[in-house]
Amino acid sequence: MKQVLPGGVNRSDLKLSDGRTISYYDSKEINRSAADQRNDEAQPGIGHLRLDPLVNEWVSVASHRQHRVFLPPKELCPLCASTSEKLTEIPDSDYEVVVFTNRSPALTTPANNWKLPAINGLDTPNADAAGACEVVCYTPDHGTSFAKLSERQIRTVLEAWKDRDSALSKLPFIEQVFPFENRGEEVGVTLSHPHGQIYAYSFLPPRIEKMLQAAQDHLKKTGRALLDDVIKREIKDEKRIISQNSEWIAYVPFAARYPFEIHLAPKRGVAGMSELDEAQSAAFPAIAKEILARLDGVFGIEMAYIASWYQAPVNSGRDSMRLHWQIVSVRRQPGKLKYLSGSESAMGAFIMDLEPEQSAQQLREVKL
Amino acid sequence: MKQVLPGGVNRSDLKLSDGRTISYYDSKEINRSAADQRNDEAQPGIGHLRLDPLVNEWVSVASHRQHRVFLPPKELCPLCASTSEKLTEIPDSDYEVVVFTNRSPALTTPANNWKLPAINGLDTPNADAAGACEVVCYTPDHGTSFAKLSERQIRTVLEAWKDRDSALSKLPFIEQVFPFENRGEEVGVTLSHPHGQIYAYSFLPPRIEKMLQAAQDHLKKTGRALLDDVIKREIKDEKRIISQNSEWIAYVPFAARYPFEIHLAPKRGVAGMSELDEAQSAAFPAIAKEILARLDGVFGIEMAYIASWYQAPVNSGRDSMRLHWQIVSVRRQPGKLKYLSGSESAMGAFIMDLEPEQSAQQLREVKL
Repeated sequence: MKQVLPGGVNRSDLKLSDGRTISYYDSKEINRSAADQRNDEAQPGIGHLRLDPLVNEWVSVASHRQHRVFLPPKELCPLCASTSEKLTEIPDSDYEVVVFTNRSPALTTPANNWKLPAINGLDTPNADAAGACEVVCYTPDHGTSFAKLSERQIRTVLEAWKDRDSALSKLPFIEQVFPFENRGEEVGVTLSHPHGQIYAYSFLPPRIEKMLQAAQDHLKKTGRALLDDVIKREIKDEKRIISQNSEWIAYVPFAARYPFEIHLAPKRGVAGMSELDEAQSAAFPAIAKEILARLDGVFGIEMAYIASWYQAPVNSGRDSMRLHWQIVSVRRQPGKLKYLSGSESAMGAFIMDLEPEQSAQQLREVKL
Repeated sequence: MKQVLPGGVNRSDLKLSDGRTISYYDSKEINRSAADQRNDEAQPGIGHLRLDPLVNEWVSVASHRQHRVFLPPKELCPLCASTSEKLTEIPDSDYEVVVFTNRSPALTTPANNWKLPAINGLDTPNADAAGACEVVCYTPDHGTSFAKLSERQIRTVLEAWKDRDSALSKLPFIEQVFPFENRGEEVGVTLSHPHGQIYAYSFLPPRIEKMLQAAQDHLKKTGRALLDDVIKREIKDEKRIISQNSEWIAYVPFAARYPFEIHLAPKRGVAGMSELDEAQSAAFPAIAKEILARLDGVFGIEMAYIASWYQAPVNSGRDSMRLHWQIVSVRRQPGKLKYLSGSESAMGAFIMDLEPEQSAQQLREVKL
């Protein structure tokens, strides 16, 4: 199947030998037909969701993931393009951007009649772990990083995210689509090839539930979207702004939780990724590159980070919640990490050692 | 000031040179009078609380902590007893258990008229970071660990926790008392001397707020405390139980979030630490030692863990919430850590790679 997306991006869908779909996203028309020459068997079964009754949150149990590949050397990287000597997840000998389902997905397609059980304390039944876990390969170049991609390449990644957001949102069992990137061994990255992931949840993740509540309260009280007012405050305060262009603004949030935390939001708010229009999409790559380069520039080393796309749930809060990208780094000084220890991980109470204004200044002062 | 506590524990309070109080907890009567011979200046000022409007949570900003001591070599350990060559945080030349305020506290005593501002979205003012951060030294022996302490010594630690819980709960600005231990560099421990901490918050930490809601809902619906019913289910299911004695039960919770997670709870539920009676207190050390030894035994290495005491807030939920200890380890295999990356840290959605029942079996099978 082929399709032309905005930004001149061409999508071609093929099948991997175990039945998974692989989507190639290319900035030019190209015939993608390389067959997967591996003899892979279909994925192991589905995990399950259990309710944690102490906080009424779903936990996914995916015991088949325990033995997945961990930091293989470059010559074994499953995210590089295939060669005659080595067959990888990408059958073709070159690619620009590809997306496919994770080989060991924690969340996957459930049976047709799947339904999330109503939460009922200790009497809540388990459920199949419905959802999707996809891998987004940003580039065939094993040794680079998102920040170093060309603007053209980042635009292609963005179109892949938008396309997958749109497709996953249409699945009847999906409530939240979450594109993200873990970068660096410090945050548990098992494959160093530049890539991100998309998790699509069949329940509202706890963090989204809480954001939705705050956003809905704000909308009810003021008639406005909360993030629009947050951005107004950032523009008024000025001192936490890192960069802006015609369509996007990047800032260290007023109550940052990490020593280096950057939020990037469209100035004209949208509920979700697939609602970004041409002007917003075209203006994204330059500022995305800039803020990630600033992050790497603070200490002159590649910063470990988690980059997360927050957006409105598929079926609620489309009028109150707003798309934005949160990039948090766990490094607080060249030799020091910020750990989520007792207060943060057990109580959810964050302690920040650096004033957000100081952190913003350091990021602004990086020479690019 | 001297006081005799349950379990034959004697408390002696002295002052450090910068004005902080140090409390010695001893299993015998002993005259503690060693003066602090350092010329320390008083603590730096108080940090502040900022509201994160996206989720209505308080974040503590404590920029004076950025330069604190990081993993000093043993000969510089500030938690060892003082010697003629080296003056530490503990003026005496020996001790059993001591408690004192953290040298760089993220939360501290506010002005008399301090009051937590009402949450009002973007219009919420900042507040001084009221609260307390204390250090609990478990033993003068730098190279040991909590699990290896004698039962007598653990009882003394327990009495110190109970005593501090009781004292901190009486302060007008304290809403939650949280004794915990981070163990291992993997969870960001900056001092390897066996010690824990007590954070006392002037607001309800987000995790407690959520637990309180679930506990209150359950009480309203059933007339019973939620944790009592959780324990009933663990006893009925049996397969996740690690150990029990007359007063305590240890289990891997039904919806564990970490590969090795143990909850230890009194069978006769209490709201908080200082309500533990003599039978419960006397029965704690043996089972505490056992479960921590099992944790270290799984891979035959010292496990990095976060051990957290959850209890009812000072001013609410005393009838619905129950004291228990949650010990979570981030190690999933000898060479592999579980990281809180995208799904866990950004969405609050946990993925568990190991079935809680498997994990419980591994813990039970450890030969002690």
